[in-house]
Amino acid sequence: MLMCQFRINKKGYNLLILLTLFTFLTGSAQTKTVKNNGPLIIKEQGSFAVGGTVITAPGTFDPIKHGAFNPTNQPSEGQTLHGDHAYVFYQIPENARKLPLVFWHGHGQSAKTWETTPDGREGYQNIFLRRRFPVYLIDQPRRGRAARSTKPLNITASPDEQLWFGIFRLGAYPNFYPGVQFSRDSEALNQFFRQMIPNTGPYDAQVNIDAVSSLFDKIGSGILLTHSQSGGPGWRTAIKNSNVKAVISFEPGGDFVFPEGETPDTIKVSGRTITPPVVPRADFMKLTKIPILIYYGDNIPTQPSQNPGQEQWRVFLEIAGKFRDAVNRHGGDVTLVHLPDIGIKGNTHFPMSDLNNLEIANHLSEFLKKKGLD
Amino acid sequence: MLMCQFRINKKGYNLLILLTLFTFLTGSAQTKTVKNNGPLIIKEQGSFAVGGTVITAPGTFDPIKHGAFNPTNQPSEGQTLHGDHAYVFYQIPENARKLPLVFWHGHGQSAKTWETTPDGREGYQNIFLRRRFPVYLIDQPRRGRAARSTKPLNITASPDEQLWFGIFRLGAYPNFYPGVQFSRDSEALNQFFRQMIPNTGPYDAQVNIDAVSSLFDKIGSGILLTHSQSGGPGWRTAIKNSNVKAVISFEPGGDFVFPEGETPDTIKVSGRTITPPVVPRADFMKLTKIPILIYYGDNIPTQPSQNPGQEQWRVFLEIAGKFRDAVNRHGGDVTLVHLPDIGIKGNTHFPMSDLNNLEIANHLSEFLKKKGLD
Repeated sequence: MLMCQFRINKKGYNLLILLTLFTFLTGSAQTKTVKNNGPLIIKEQGSFAVGGTVITAPGTFDPIKHGAFNPTNQPSEGQTLHGDHAYVFYQIPENARKLPLVFWHGHGQSAKTWETTPDGREGYQNIFLRRRFPVYLIDQPRRGRAARSTKPLNITASPDEQLWFGIFRLGAYPNFYPGVQFSRDSEALNQFFRQMIPNTGPYDAQVNIDAVSSLFDKIGSGILLTHSQSGGPGWRTAIKNSNVKAVISFEPGGDFVFPEGETPDTIKVSGRTITPPVVPRADFMKLTKIPILIYYGDNIPTQPSQNPGQEQWRVFLEIAGKFRDAVNRHGGDVTLVHLPDIGIKGNTHFPMSDLNNLEIANHLSEFLKKKGLD
Repeated sequence: MLMCQFRINKKGYNLLILLTLFTFLTGSAQTKTVKNNGPLIIKEQGSFAVGGTVITAPGTFDPIKHGAFNPTNQPSEGQTLHGDHAYVFYQIPENARKLPLVFWHGHGQSAKTWETTPDGREGYQNIFLRRRFPVYLIDQPRRGRAARSTKPLNITASPDEQLWFGIFRLGAYPNFYPGVQFSRDSEALNQFFRQMIPNTGPYDAQVNIDAVSSLFDKIGSGILLTHSQSGGPGWRTAIKNSNVKAVISFEPGGDFVFPEGETPDTIKVSGRTITPPVVPRADFMKLTKIPILIYYGDNIPTQPSQNPGQEQWRVFLEIAGKFRDAVNRHGGDVTLVHLPDIGIKGNTHFPMSDLNNLEIANHLSEFLKKKGLD
């Protein structure tokens, strides 16, 4: 309306003015949707299962004889179970960048790791959608919405959250580390504990690698983001599937892979013995062909510590350095970022959802830009 | 714009042309985002845990003594477990309608029920986002991403899919029912089976009711959509929480609630004995204050059947009629829709994801409009 009235008053320039106004309006409309916390423009979203296997019980199924639900004693004659797949939820924004980000959670977690943070802010799902990356969020096999396992498991429901408070480096329970990037609002810790979920089948790294590799077969080229326990399987997925064009690993566990003859010695940490796994040289060389970025947070001691929640990370960070050196020695491109060394302090085991997760996201975006991955 | 054109008509042709062009461009842009499969404009999206309890193991936790991860024998001294909450993923579209839709899955399912269909089309999450409803998708306690249970459970991984093929009324395995609204593409059945997930704790309807009621405490007024096993707890959640402004129930199970003195007789079905639960009259009367819509699909026999996969639904549909009559006799507003009776044929136990799920969605939209719920 405004345009119309404006134009009608003036004759000669009307065409020019209308065009300018039109350009201005559409232009501003675009910037509004890209910047800040404007709406997310989702071109496509959905979910699917990928990978997995099928087991079949002996016998023959008879829909009349075996077709009644019996919660206590269900006959399995000749029946199948589809299990060990991954569940994936994806969102593709408008004007999407070429390479999607594939988010893979850690131990006792699900895709929730990458969604809303424990204190209620946006996680990397939303943050990188706003930066126009397609996002794929995984629940790995035998976890969350991919809970159907081909192997049984007893879930114990044993209280263990104070253990994880320490291993996830919020602090030494009940005390938070000074300046740790985690909200002191008790609801944040409540949400954080409630995002933990148990395995629904025996943990099997190879089952997870196979399912995530199937995802890359389905979607093509992409960037794999791992966290903690998925770090090790992440290296092996990148070796297995050349559609993995880069790996971003947040606080990977100790199972970095090394080529024959170059493995560091066996390491004892908090009563556990860790022997970094060996892979054939040809496989290891595949890791030298893609950019790799590894993040570790704060409160990781430089000297052996009595606190097991910190000690294991001191050791893993040390192995990470040897891994970086091994890959780069063979012509690779591994960047190891110990956040405090670049002045980013207080991060827990979850930099992607810590209070300063945007600062980490900006660092990651710069890396992706520098490597031509955006 | 029309008005402008009318006025400009007298002013000169270039304006008319440009304006028409402008109208066409903006007009088509608008319809594109509303109709068909244009982009979803999401004002806000995220996830959270709601409800649940906390258990604490006896003893005192010592971060030094108990802080090391021991996968085989984890000490629980003085530690907590937050469990029995629901996990909720929500999306709020631009220009959202007032009442959100709260989607609650059935037995062996998760929020996946409402996402992409087994044959890869849009589910009710997307369909009703496009119709400007805020959507809240639940993983109920001890299921999916809400898997942390305060009670242990042994997951057997026993093959049972042919049983569900029958109970979900795709057919009598291995045969599909003629004209059933389910894709014959084998990948659709693969996806359908893989969206099943086991309980991670003992099934407890009250635990689920409490968590979903907590969700309505958090979000305020909304419309509850239940499916199959969540049907019964759905009635009780509506009784418990007055923020439930309507219930849409897809193929609810047999546990309809009745007031004292008005329960139908105990029913035997496929070897199981079903006694519809009794609730205090005052509670029952709360169900007479809200619109209730119940859907059942096709291939439900009218006479007793030898096929257990069909027989239980014949009985549940019969109880549904008694429930409708009981609620309406007391001044309620229950609509029971047996889809074949209104000419919608071939639906399985999952009308929300069947091949004709858009037709059902349109019927539902009309109901919501008629009841002033949109």
